[in-house]
Amino acid sequence: MNSKQSGRRRFLKGSAALAGLAVGGIRSASAQALDSGTSGTGSQDPHVYGQRSRFETSARVGALGVYEPGPNGPTRRDLGFRTPLQDSIGIITPAPLHFILSHGFETVDVDPRQHRLLIHGLVDRPLMLTVEELKRLPSVSRIHFLECNANGDPARAVRRAPSATVQQTHGLTSCSIWTGVPLAVLLREAGVQKGASWLIAEGAEQDFHTKSIPLAKGMDDVLVAWGQNGEPLRPEQGYPIRLIVPGWEGINSVKFLRRIKLADQPTMGMREISKYSSLRLDGKGRWFQFEMGPKSVITRPSGGQRLPGRGFYEITGLAWSGGGAIRRVEVSTDGGLTWKDAQLDGPVHPKAHTRFGFPWTWNGEETVLLSRCTDERGEVQPTIAELATFWRVNVDYFRSVAMIVGHFNAIQPWKVIRDGSVENALYS
Amino acid sequence: MNSKQSGRRRFLKGSAALAGLAVGGIRSASAQALDSGTSGTGSQDPHVYGQRSRFETSARVGALGVYEPGPNGPTRRDLGFRTPLQDSIGIITPAPLHFILSHGFETVDVDPRQHRLLIHGLVDRPLMLTVEELKRLPSVSRIHFLECNANGDPARAVRRAPSATVQQTHGLTSCSIWTGVPLAVLLREAGVQKGASWLIAEGAEQDFHTKSIPLAKGMDDVLVAWGQNGEPLRPEQGYPIRLIVPGWEGINSVKFLRRIKLADQPTMGMREISKYSSLRLDGKGRWFQFEMGPKSVITRPSGGQRLPGRGFYEITGLAWSGGGAIRRVEVSTDGGLTWKDAQLDGPVHPKAHTRFGFPWTWNGEETVLLSRCTDERGEVQPTIAELATFWRVNVDYFRSVAMIVGHFNAIQPWKVIRDGSVENALYS
Repeated sequence: MNSKQSGRRRFLKGSAALAGLAVGGIRSASAQALDSGTSGTGSQDPHVYGQRSRFETSARVGALGVYEPGPNGPTRRDLGFRTPLQDSIGIITPAPLHFILSHGFETVDVDPRQHRLLIHGLVDRPLMLTVEELKRLPSVSRIHFLECNANGDPARAVRRAPSATVQQTHGLTSCSIWTGVPLAVLLREAGVQKGASWLIAEGAEQDFHTKSIPLAKGMDDVLVAWGQNGEPLRPEQGYPIRLIVPGWEGINSVKFLRRIKLADQPTMGMREISKYSSLRLDGKGRWFQFEMGPKSVITRPSGGQRLPGRGFYEITGLAWSGGGAIRRVEVSTDGGLTWKDAQLDGPVHPKAHTRFGFPWTWNGEETVLLSRCTDERGEVQPTIAELATFWRVNVDYFRSVAMIVGHFNAIQPWKVIRDGSVENALYS
Repeated sequence: MNSKQSGRRRFLKGSAALAGLAVGGIRSASAQALDSGTSGTGSQDPHVYGQRSRFETSARVGALGVYEPGPNGPTRRDLGFRTPLQDSIGIITPAPLHFILSHGFETVDVDPRQHRLLIHGLVDRPLMLTVEELKRLPSVSRIHFLECNANGDPARAVRRAPSATVQQTHGLTSCSIWTGVPLAVLLREAGVQKGASWLIAEGAEQDFHTKSIPLAKGMDDVLVAWGQNGEPLRPEQGYPIRLIVPGWEGINSVKFLRRIKLADQPTMGMREISKYSSLRLDGKGRWFQFEMGPKSVITRPSGGQRLPGRGFYEITGLAWSGGGAIRRVEVSTDGGLTWKDAQLDGPVHPKAHTRFGFPWTWNGEETVLLSRCTDERGEVQPTIAELATFWRVNVDYFRSVAMIVGHFNAIQPWKVIRDGSVENALYS
């Protein structure tokens, strides 16, 4: 994995930077099919492009509803759709079930032949690339989670309800293998000028969603991604290209990416100074919170499920951290009195969902199941009480405020009742 | 990744082995939806279950056609469908595009609630498991390729033609993250008796496809898999459960798995002693060839594609070996005169597709592109001439025989012509 090594080379020499790529991409049979107007979803033959079994019904559910005026009164509209983590298998989220947050705007229907990426601002050689030209550059594949900073927000009643499922409490995180060109490669091609310290990324949404990202992060592990789980990006995930900013709030991973401007200060976009900020103790705004903390959750058994009887169960769940790889997951089956190490069951990658498992024999008595993780820097997932202490608030604060509580990574308790049903016990 | 550690424990104690599991699986919201008859593919709302972009058209193509009598004369029927490797991204094959080999039988429509797995024969405690019971046991996730032993078969005219695409030459290999219970866990639960040395796996196809596998392999890294790329197995891949026998001929990874019998000898099934055998030099049959050798292929640029002009191209492709992890890939852009190390661009896992990349500036002259890989044991992918020498045949043998040439892992040459078109040069 020597992407950095390859990134140090320049591929588009001197003034031929644009000319060298302007000739277009590699033509293949499927590009020709594209020209002939064959529909990507048109084939009904499962041998040509398969579908899941008719017995499988896992589905995203709406989230973060807003009410809009309509002819018959206010109509609910979902800004987001949550991943069904209760059905999650291993560490990869299938693309059809990846969470969606659209910030009130519909998925943009982008024609990849018309789409361009512009890199400009404080650079020596501005770049304008087609999608095919981007694919001609050296790419890497990385397994990373994306998580909305509001994931787990306890200010929402649905998340606090005893009936909440893990989809409702934690479904705004997903994990994919992303394939794309390291942004550092593109920035070296463009030649970043002295004085540049921020990059401002813009998507092709109706409102041109814009996000400021420190240049140092852009030179580190950010990707301009065009692949997801071995396929082109899905439309809801920013087709044909998006940023992937590993470990940071999902809002940074700008979808339908069309422009990156190098600058000497952030742009202070609408979402940076209002929604994605919080109040500091001195009364001023905390504008830039980037990294997602260590978090874990048991996905099975979890809220809304029912154990059919006493006996053996493999407790399983997911852990992740914006700070790097998961080093350890502990599970408690007695409400936190004792903790034991879980197994990490599968590939462990930095800033990626990590699957854990823990063998458990249920004796039929009421109990509470918990998990907590530690990342490679030694940061430990807190309890809700520890989180309140850290933020200098009362635990009740989390359910009383009207604003979104971002970065809420408290330990999730699931209560197993004697009849085998499982309940959300965050506030019980 | 301590699956072996967890595997050493027994989960179903003593005579309660079956009773302990007979109570059924964990009930969840989606299981309830299943009962209510909701169709898995019914929702047309892309927010609920997404589809790929209308601009994407990558597709499997038929392979290994046979002719069957029909009312209007013989009708071609494809036994297999090849993965479009020319469109491959990273190391994971999307489930809808995983290659299919059905051996003349249609995909079986298995109801997971009715399906059972029986483990019997030379065991102390025969096991009968439902799919839900299987999912209650400790699972692991592993990235592995599956490859048909006939992949690359040069006896087929379509594979030798200059117009052959990489889908036609190498499309009978795919790679997924498989999730399942280590077979060793199940065998320990059942208690393998002294004298058992083989396991005989049977699928639910019309002809009960049967395969004999040495017990030592079964205790090593074989999975009883129910998950593929984060979703339940796809129907064409053996839904609801299949064997995954890492690194070995795909025929071993029995789909629609319903029975495993422990025995003191192989069953000598039809496919073991005819199709999946070859002739030894002494005239006897070589019946059991299991492991797939080191193989690599450049997927871009590859046959049927066209370079739009001289300039920079990232050569990219896949390498894999049944013998373990890929350690090195070399690329030649001058027909084999000189070789240079390619980069390994992404996760490198044992017995898994590994993506490589190599920066190349095309000067517009005719040339031949090659790749060769070395696995962790030091085994190097051979040229077709070396392979012929090893097998003590003439190179022309490969295109003259009427039988399938399995385990053909020769270096694949792609010729770039002056107009930018790319041709299969295996026999030129």
